[in-house]
Amino acid sequence: MTDTAPRPTLEAVAARAGVSRATASRVVNGGDGVREPLVARVRRAVEELGYVPNQAARSLVTRRHDAVAVVIAEPETRVFADPFFALQLRGISKELTAHDNQLVLLLTEGRDDHARVGRYLAGGHVDGALVFSLHLDDPLPGLIQRAGVPTVFGGRPGWSEDSGGAVYVDSDNRGGAREAVQHLVGLGRTRVAHITGPLDQTSAADRLEGYRDVMGDADPGLVVESDFTPAGGERAMRELLERHPSPDAVFAANDLTASGALRVLRERGRRVPEDVALIGFDDMLPVAEQTDPPLTTVRQDIEEMGRLMARLLLRGGAEQGVEGAPSSVVLPTTLVRRASA
Amino acid sequence: MTDTAPRPTLEAVAARAGVSRATASRVVNGGDGVREPLVARVRRAVEELGYVPNQAARSLVTRRHDAVAVVIAEPETRVFADPFFALQLRGISKELTAHDNQLVLLLTEGRDDHARVGRYLAGGHVDGALVFSLHLDDPLPGLIQRAGVPTVFGGRPGWSEDSGGAVYVDSDNRGGAREAVQHLVGLGRTRVAHITGPLDQTSAADRLEGYRDVMGDADPGLVVESDFTPAGGERAMRELLERHPSPDAVFAANDLTASGALRVLRERGRRVPEDVALIGFDDMLPVAEQTDPPLTTVRQDIEEMGRLMARLLLRGGAEQGVEGAPSSVVLPTTLVRRASA
Repeated sequence: MTDTAPRPTLEAVAARAGVSRATASRVVNGGDGVREPLVARVRRAVEELGYVPNQAARSLVTRRHDAVAVVIAEPETRVFADPFFALQLRGISKELTAHDNQLVLLLTEGRDDHARVGRYLAGGHVDGALVFSLHLDDPLPGLIQRAGVPTVFGGRPGWSEDSGGAVYVDSDNRGGAREAVQHLVGLGRTRVAHITGPLDQTSAADRLEGYRDVMGDADPGLVVESDFTPAGGERAMRELLERHPSPDAVFAANDLTASGALRVLRERGRRVPEDVALIGFDDMLPVAEQTDPPLTTVRQDIEEMGRLMARLLLRGGAEQGVEGAPSSVVLPTTLVRRASA
Repeated sequence: MTDTAPRPTLEAVAARAGVSRATASRVVNGGDGVREPLVARVRRAVEELGYVPNQAARSLVTRRHDAVAVVIAEPETRVFADPFFALQLRGISKELTAHDNQLVLLLTEGRDDHARVGRYLAGGHVDGALVFSLHLDDPLPGLIQRAGVPTVFGGRPGWSEDSGGAVYVDSDNRGGAREAVQHLVGLGRTRVAHITGPLDQTSAADRLEGYRDVMGDADPGLVVESDFTPAGGERAMRELLERHPSPDAVFAANDLTASGALRVLRERGRRVPEDVALIGFDDMLPVAEQTDPPLTTVRQDIEEMGRLMARLLLRGGAEQGVEGAPSSVVLPTTLVRRASA
């Protein structure tokens, strides 16, 4: 894996800081003899441009670090609470370890820390990055692009049509959602509700599209936005029952959301699946099997997605414009039928 | 934070590889014109010694990376399964973020990967390291020492008496265990069993010492080694009941172990606390409160331990031999009384 993206030059740093090349060079190489306000301006320019002093500073003996960064664009509390991330990391870890590459997980408290993540990526500490759970207005993609680090995304980035060639691994979210809703309609359900994920993520937006492919003319009040968590599923189900007292089916955007919705349905005395049929997404175990009744769900192979992301990166699939480089992969989903629908 | 540990020189690399300094230099700076077997020998020497080509390669503009590595000496599957690690990381993450330092979590599949972790630490990608869950025969401490990276350990390293000054944050494991067992004896229990953690970790070994402080002359058959997991707690409780059919109290080395032991006691028709009083360690929520009955346990502030580790590292507490540098901290524990004992 080599870098093909152009790197910012010392000249660019000097221009941005409004100083001479010699001054910029002195700051970059230690800062002696330069007045403090200029030092600060040059350092700011270095950070903003993601400038790295020299190739030697990036690549030691072998010109490689044999290390890959993983960035999950969520606060660390969510990373450790949602088994989705543990599964994806498991796939990544297995693949990287098989190639003796170090998995470097960059944790944050939230989006405010993403500029710092960008600096670390630009600092020449890893050969590439795997980035997932991006939200639409996240500054990370821009920071990563400026860092010039080969990257594979988990899930289609929202800006991929514009960026012309981001490499990603995704599931067929829209097709899987369509199959789930068609299954509910096939059971004779007519008032099919949808509890979405956060709609600033393409996985959630695509599942909503799949729902609309089948239920395009349904009451818009049957759709409630949520956040992929069990607590969010509870809140959304309560809101749904207030808005629309008698849905006869619910398609939840993931299994954790479905588990929360199920608790509220039981609390309100609605029988699942008799009164309300329920379908989730992920086939997240043990959650999907341990609910009562067990969840019908759309299975995606999350660990395999992680493995594929790592494989694409290690094979150089992230080098845009390289002839014959592998491109993005969209994995099929399968409907797993259990008792809830 | 600056580095005070001596770094291996290019001369040392050349000597180890059995080549001239000039040859070693050529390999380190690109490798042109050196025969392949010599290149391989030099690179091996570089790795073995943790040699870093030059200071500039380690420290970019500011001579700092504003990044701290966290190494948990367990496979990634355990890191994500045991809430202990999530809590400790939460404390670390909050403290590092407050100081705009990037948390770099180095995940592995197991101990075979620790040499690679050592290489990453030696490669000049972080200002320091926080290392926890060490096992006695783990090569990590040696690798870290050679990497010359300031380090704070979570839990007393087993070799600290010899190493003369490893900085660590720990709980009073022995004192906490002693208080738990004294509480059981105070309840009139005479056949107090102990399910230990993995005894190649000082936290487990120290809790066993605390148990022995009180029950020194008890039947050794009352002590069963386990592994800090719920499944391990189940196995150990079964073994204990086979060996010693009627213990009237069990001190489990952590709450997860206690939850497993509790399941087996119930399965065998033993009432808790009437027939068998049970005490755990950690006060891990929600586990400790959600068992039936809720667990009496020895509370340690795991998140605070993480925060303190990060604080000591950032303050330069890891620089051995620095006058006035903070030294290791041992936090007190408290017995939390609930229904199980």
